[in-house]
Amino acid sequence: MHVAVIGANGGIGREVVARLADAGHDALGVVRAESQFDAVRERGGEPRVGDLEGEFVPALQGADAVVFTAGSGGGTGWDETLLVDLWGARRAVDACVEHGIDRFVMVSAYGAGDPSASPEAIRPYQVAKRCADDYLEWSPLDATVLRPTTLTDDEGTGRVSAAFEHPEAAGAEIPRADVAQTVVACLAHDETVGETIRLFGGDTPIDDAVQSDG
Amino acid sequence: MHVAVIGANGGIGREVVARLADAGHDALGVVRAESQFDAVRERGGEPRVGDLEGEFVPALQGADAVVFTAGSGGGTGWDETLLVDLWGARRAVDACVEHGIDRFVMVSAYGAGDPSASPEAIRPYQVAKRCADDYLEWSPLDATVLRPTTLTDDEGTGRVSAAFEHPEAAGAEIPRADVAQTVVACLAHDETVGETIRLFGGDTPIDDAVQSDG
Repeated sequence: MHVAVIGANGGIGREVVARLADAGHDALGVVRAESQFDAVRERGGEPRVGDLEGEFVPALQGADAVVFTAGSGGGTGWDETLLVDLWGARRAVDACVEHGIDRFVMVSAYGAGDPSASPEAIRPYQVAKRCADDYLEWSPLDATVLRPTTLTDDEGTGRVSAAFEHPEAAGAEIPRADVAQTVVACLAHDETVGETIRLFGGDTPIDDAVQSDG
Repeated sequence: MHVAVIGANGGIGREVVARLADAGHDALGVVRAESQFDAVRERGGEPRVGDLEGEFVPALQGADAVVFTAGSGGGTGWDETLLVDLWGARRAVDACVEHGIDRFVMVSAYGAGDPSASPEAIRPYQVAKRCADDYLEWSPLDATVLRPTTLTDDEGTGRVSAAFEHPEAAGAEIPRADVAQTVVACLAHDETVGETIRLFGGDTPIDDAVQSDG
């Protein structure tokens, strides 16, 4: 499978590229600048330039699926949250619809499920993520939305806890590597199409977790 | 008709309240603070307190229709754009769905039709407006979206130009008073349900303009 990873040089994106390659997929690592090409290649991906605020459609050429894990990051203003996390995500969805790329996995955030209940400091971010998730869900694409809780750089465990609906609130952190592995597992399991999955650190092997309430 | 105006003390909101009252409607002017009550009363409206970032549902009690013309304004940050113009609008739509208020008129902005083509300085704002508009359009409400071009405080003319689809780009300014009168006209004409109307200064009497490409 050819999988374009938008945000391939981010914390989760780097792990997604490496794990896609490990699983035998062709990972197309979409990054903003050629200076990030080596980072993609080192992880076994084919680097491509794409800018969510400019031209990125050519970077998706040949893809069977798209993973969206781009974000403006904490160091920029809320205007970039609107332009990248929300509008960039919508543009990516539109591009997939237009070019017949049917499968889309969105890396969202736990708090996007209920932005009004989020801490004030990150509430605007959760609004942007929620609106992007909704746009994807209302699209005709085969979509999976992952909403991981607090991310860490700990080593991956290969195990998570997944909740498909009405989960108990959970504070359990999750390593970015396990989120990345869950992305890859979702691409392998069509049962995840149409699902919004809240994701926590946990004890269920990832392949099992994405197939049922784990 | 009982019409709740969210953002009743804004530039367009004040005009909407006055024109609703003139047309014989009961205008429920939703404002953030009691200090704005007199401004609503002076225009013939019944003032109510409602906060889009907090509690506002009680302010809609008894309404048959809602006009959304609130905005965080140019003096605040983009975080408020996300929280008020986008999330506040979505919460207003949700409240109407939940409480059986079927009619909704959204005052949007011309550039929301194509945020990527907007001047950079206001692009994040157009993204927020577009996403709010889409949420309303995808809701089960009887919705009209108005997208006026550049607003002025000139006196109303009673005439506009309305384009229901694929209009030529137009730069013609429009007085806020004429936007407000168009809101009132939309409430009187069910043909506007389901329409997104781009609105310019023009020569067509408002009641005629909202019933066909003016």
